[in-house]
Amino acid sequence: MSGNSFGKSFVVTTFGESHGPAIGGIVDGCPPGIAIEPEFIQRDLDRRAPGKSRHTTQRREPDRIQLLSGVFDGLTTGTPIGLLIQNEDQRSHDYQTLADRFRPGHADYTYTMKYGRRDPRGGGRSSARETAIRVAAGAIAKLVLTHTHGIRIRGYLSQLGPLKPQSHDWNEVECNPFFCGDAALVPKLEQFMDQLRKSGDSIGAEVTVIAEYVPPGLGEPVFDRLDADIAHALMSINAVKGIEIGAGFAAIKQKGSEHRDEMTPTGFLTNNAGGILGGISTGQNIIARIALKPTSSLRLPGRTVDVHGQATEVITTGRHDPCVGIRATPIAEAMLALVLADHLLRQRGQNADVIPPLAALPGGTVTN
Amino acid sequence: MSGNSFGKSFVVTTFGESHGPAIGGIVDGCPPGIAIEPEFIQRDLDRRAPGKSRHTTQRREPDRIQLLSGVFDGLTTGTPIGLLIQNEDQRSHDYQTLADRFRPGHADYTYTMKYGRRDPRGGGRSSARETAIRVAAGAIAKLVLTHTHGIRIRGYLSQLGPLKPQSHDWNEVECNPFFCGDAALVPKLEQFMDQLRKSGDSIGAEVTVIAEYVPPGLGEPVFDRLDADIAHALMSINAVKGIEIGAGFAAIKQKGSEHRDEMTPTGFLTNNAGGILGGISTGQNIIARIALKPTSSLRLPGRTVDVHGQATEVITTGRHDPCVGIRATPIAEAMLALVLADHLLRQRGQNADVIPPLAALPGGTVTN
Amino acid sequence: MSGNSFGKSFVVTTFGESHGPAIGGIVDGCPPGIAIEPEFIQRDLDRRAPGKSRHTTQRREPDRIQLLSGVFDGLTTGTPIGLLIQNEDQRSHDYQTLADRFRPGHADYTYTMKYGRRDPRGGGRSSARETAIRVAAGAIAKLVLTHTHGIRIRGYLSQLGPLKPQSHDWNEVECNPFFCGDAALVPKLEQFMDQLRKSGDSIGAEVTVIAEYVPPGLGEPVFDRLDADIAHALMSINAVKGIEIGAGFAAIKQKGSEHRDEMTPTGFLTNNAGGILGGISTGQNIIARIALKPTSSLRLPGRTVDVHGQATEVITTGRHDPCVGIRATPIAEAMLALVLADHLLRQRGQNADVIPPLAALPGGTVTN
Amino acid sequence: MSGNSFGKSFVVTTFGESHGPAIGGIVDGCPPGIAIEPEFIQRDLDRRAPGKSRHTTQRREPDRIQLLSGVFDGLTTGTPIGLLIQNEDQRSHDYQTLADRFRPGHADYTYTMKYGRRDPRGGGRSSARETAIRVAAGAIAKLVLTHTHGIRIRGYLSQLGPLKPQSHDWNEVECNPFFCGDAALVPKLEQFMDQLRKSGDSIGAEVTVIAEYVPPGLGEPVFDRLDADIAHALMSINAVKGIEIGAGFAAIKQKGSEHRDEMTPTGFLTNNAGGILGGISTGQNIIARIALKPTSSLRLPGRTVDVHGQATEVITTGRHDPCVGIRATPIAEAMLALVLADHLLRQRGQNADVIPPLAALPGGTVTN
Repeated sequence: MSGNSFGKSFVVTTFGESHGPAIGGIVDGCPPGIAIEPEFIQRDLDRRAPGKSRHTTQRREPDRIQLLSGVFDGLTTGTPIGLLIQNEDQRSHDYQTLADRFRPGHADYTYTMKYGRRDPRGGGRSSARETAIRVAAGAIAKLVLTHTHGIRIRGYLSQLGPLKPQSHDWNEVECNPFFCGDAALVPKLEQFMDQLRKSGDSIGAEVTVIAEYVPPGLGEPVFDRLDADIAHALMSINAVKGIEIGAGFAAIKQKGSEHRDEMTPTGFLTNNAGGILGGISTGQNIIARIALKPTSSLRLPGRTVDVHGQATEVITTGRHDPCVGIRATPIAEAMLALVLADHLLRQRGQNADVIPPLAALPGGTVTN
Repeated sequence: MSGNSFGKSFVVTTFGESHGPAIGGIVDGCPPGIAIEPEFIQRDLDRRAPGKSRHTTQRREPDRIQLLSGVFDGLTTGTPIGLLIQNEDQRSHDYQTLADRFRPGHADYTYTMKYGRRDPRGGGRSSARETAIRVAAGAIAKLVLTHTHGIRIRGYLSQLGPLKPQSHDWNEVECNPFFCGDAALVPKLEQFMDQLRKSGDSIGAEVTVIAEYVPPGLGEPVFDRLDADIAHALMSINAVKGIEIGAGFAAIKQKGSEHRDEMTPTGFLTNNAGGILGGISTGQNIIARIALKPTSSLRLPGRTVDVHGQATEVITTGRHDPCVGIRATPIAEAMLALVLADHLLRQRGQNADVIPPLAALPGGTVTN
Repeated sequence: MSGNSFGKSFVVTTFGESHGPAIGGIVDGCPPGIAIEPEFIQRDLDRRAPGKSRHTTQRREPDRIQLLSGVFDGLTTGTPIGLLIQNEDQRSHDYQTLADRFRPGHADYTYTMKYGRRDPRGGGRSSARETAIRVAAGAIAKLVLTHTHGIRIRGYLSQLGPLKPQSHDWNEVECNPFFCGDAALVPKLEQFMDQLRKSGDSIGAEVTVIAEYVPPGLGEPVFDRLDADIAHALMSINAVKGIEIGAGFAAIKQKGSEHRDEMTPTGFLTNNAGGILGGISTGQNIIARIALKPTSSLRLPGRTVDVHGQATEVITTGRHDPCVGIRATPIAEAMLALVLADHLLRQRGQNADVIPPLAALPGGTVTN
Repeated sequence: MSGNSFGKSFVVTTFGESHGPAIGGIVDGCPPGIAIEPEFIQRDLDRRAPGKSRHTTQRREPDRIQLLSGVFDGLTTGTPIGLLIQNEDQRSHDYQTLADRFRPGHADYTYTMKYGRRDPRGGGRSSARETAIRVAAGAIAKLVLTHTHGIRIRGYLSQLGPLKPQSHDWNEVECNPFFCGDAALVPKLEQFMDQLRKSGDSIGAEVTVIAEYVPPGLGEPVFDRLDADIAHALMSINAVKGIEIGAGFAAIKQKGSEHRDEMTPTGFLTNNAGGILGGISTGQNIIARIALKPTSSLRLPGRTVDVHGQATEVITTGRHDPCVGIRATPIAEAMLALVLADHLLRQRGQNADVIPPLAALPGGTVTN
């Protein structure tokens, strides 16, 4: 009940704090016979890893993933996959002064109210460190999706503070530390971040994730709609404050004649639905966007209270990401992959005998 | 696995189609000793019911709720509460012409792809009719929240197409068919809807829901964050395409020094967090907003394909809501109530012995 | 969390007390396209129904099942199936004198300790009445098992007090009110029961259930072993105090060379395993036995305490089964069917692509 | 869905094979503030460990438990507890000859049928090695039960083949390698086991586990009865073929006037119920017994088939327990502890406000 598992058929459970000896997790429900390439998992971990550029936290974590079980001769066996990453860079002394006061905008206060106590070292379970295991599990989910149905999942930074890409080239996304698809924006992003870092402040961001080649029919009609589970998954990422599918909040001002995606024998004409109708995939690209808040760990002093309820101030001096959105792309991809792998297995279980009555329509134009 | 249950401790499961003999559900996990006033449940059902004004579907459903079990002498017994609503107005002939073609923007296509077949009468399980049971179960959740902790949940229409309230008075919300808190906007809404109805088109909307007097400490740190579960719950409502907590998408452009909610001995100074930090309630008001798409059931012809994949057109002639957002307020309240009741019981289970180490801070200013 | 649901993929949830207006349930996860014959479900309900002979309680319940949703044109749609049975014979006055004292061996005391209050009418949720919905849901599970894999589930009374069948003929089982396969034993059972009823006492019994034509590979290796889930299911039936699979308690004295079921190209030579090895079905018959205690509702006075903790006596004067084991056969069949349907869908979900590397061995001799 | 988790509120998930680098698990839902003594956990692991006497497998596993998270300053934090045990003695070559044929009575065959492939090294996931993590998690559950309610859980060997203890002294149980409470029986057990080992055969056994000082009110009325969950838990242990609660199978021949446990102001007079009525704890001792089959890994040749379906023979030459029941006592204790910790938290969640209406009756005489 304390909510450290995600999924019903393809289930990941995680444990670990940023300043303990290790973090880890278990993937339960992975089908047998899936080829697991450890370097594929490691690549996604490296994409998420901090310390790769001056724009992310300088905490250095090699994040070497160990697969402890569930794989034999390079293929999954159908039994649970144990995941482990040793913590190597644990400078917990950075945090000692924070133990007696609450950082505004941080989980210090709520953890204390919930548990009556908390692990003050590095935020404990609220640290973004926990997402490393999600990325590893999500990489396994990606392998399942690719090897069984050719589904591809990828994402990019679609806004950072006031800066928005004016173009999108997938080839650019992995060529800069921002996951930005507009090469022309990259120097502006660097300049913006340099200035921000100097000021001791932080900034919000938006990330877009897309799943391509998804078969129609994934998702359940009522509570476990595909979009509802995606919303759950993405909102569970640290710092996310909003989530949109397809047209999202723009749908408020749309008329039905504009919003509905008309269908022709050669495919949908638009994709305002973001690939999901009635909670079930249409076969079009699934498109989701998340809004990430600016991190609350600032070098600028903030008003707060201490554990005795007395007014005080707080400054965060540790190593932190001035924009958590920068590293969020692989995490959002992982969560989307986990949802799709889960629903793929659920659909196989309940409707394995279903033969689609007509060829699935080709997906429509991607509308970001 | 087919996802007709919601919650882990306070669990609601629903069944029923719009054109079967009845819809119903089961609330499992309601604590014993809660006073159940059937008229309270009925009142929320009446708030959701269609046909109350010319701006909603003219389908008339008295929606008389029956409580079949789990209540003895006016108090819950702790055993499951069976809920039943007879369907009375079942003009399924309205839908017969839709059986062989797919309405664009509707779940017809995805249901067929998922199950290999579908119930063409009124959209079957994808019909908004299903939400009546959610509202009944949510009313029970509201009673649990109120009687045990004095928590109050309420909502309002915060946008309809281009029209936004310029003021907010809770007393106005229940005085018009739109759940609008700005009395001055009501005539404009009526005019807008009249014009829309004549044109045969539909429109999107935004609804805001708020939970007040929530104790701090509700929610779990990682996957089952309170905000993640709220996102799941609200995105599971028909037609919802986006969800925000607190500052939401506005957080993208915010700096950390602006976004973080500073704390003083007399309370938080702002509420950009929307009452949730690190996935756990802060004690401030919980504020969520949802974007609802315009319904896809239009009297304007749309291009589509039939079940043989041939191009055709479709017009929806049945009785439909031109703005599903109008009736969405009680549904969104119900889903928020279900999430909070669930997390309240979860917190009691895991941390029943916790004595908060300091008096909870008073909630900050509500910032919509 | 209050445990009124069973299964993970094929899920049944029940509600209702013996003296409320109705009992009911929801089957969620039934695959689409399964032919549902209401008379098949009704037949199992009739097999369970009381009042058919003088050897069971004289409470008369027609138990007319209503299917409220999830079935269209005689086939399941894949959406939840709502089940309802009206309660017609509610003589709750029979129980009024029991409200202030606890019947020894009955759930009166434990319900009061758990909930702080209880519904004294007919035992509330602890009444065997609740099993009617299990039987209806189990009948749907049987239809899934039969229509998809030809699996057959049936059971019989294998002991009543000191009386054990000396032979077994499946054709006899449905020809007497005891579900006894030994025609010669039936007169002795009738005599025994007549005498027992006169004495005001009750008696224990054993029921055996068997699943035939089960494909190998159902069940999960560790906690959700097929035998563990069967034990859970059968032990959840009122009055069950023991459960055996295959050799059961006789295995204590067996040597490994005797117990292990040797394999030949034409099949297993024995079935001490009861059709399950390592928690997974072997393809042999699955054989389970349950021990049912004598009911605690007696006309013989028993020492007890009242709600104030004072010593008193109690006599149960209502209509009760002197041997609950007599009507337990269809209930045990239903629970076994629910477990197998659940694991069938789970196996399809996780291992849908598995092609057995060799033809499954034919099942071995049934050893009861 | 692949069933490597147990519990709903206090949840343990395990991973690992006997011949991988490590086994491990996660305990999710442990309340905060529980004092965790690693040596207490280690003690239970040592009680289960093989190689302590000549009567168990000579595989030597130091089984050093590592607690990787969830504990700070000796107290649980309420976040998940990561458990890890390195595998040190991995002579997988012992098993190479078994890769192409199936051992009768073993999970080789069913794993192959389920997954289409299997890890032949040491039985993979079906190895009893997996139970080490259960024991570690169960020890944490014991600490929760003891520190919050003073509940004590312990067990003993109640039969080995034909040999039954004639007396029971708890002080003797930990003084011999059999967990036998009858000192006079120990030499006979040693003689029996020596002879058995020489013959290359194996033997079944019975283990009894008891929970003392359990508060009344734990367990849920219908599917998640306390006895049903105990049956699930105990039947999930390797080699278990039967489970009894209280009078168990003896109840078949009992009359109701004999079976029912009468109540007096000073307590129950008997305990045929085994501490559970209507699925809910009575406050008496909870008593469960399990039947364990003789292991199927024998040095005596057995008829079987190979992976091509051809007839062949098999001999198991590795290191195995000739009586798996000997080491089963700590495992059965662990599973009982997990069930009770789970239901304790569930009861707190749903019925935290319940004040028992009268002092719980004192527990009755333990009747084994």
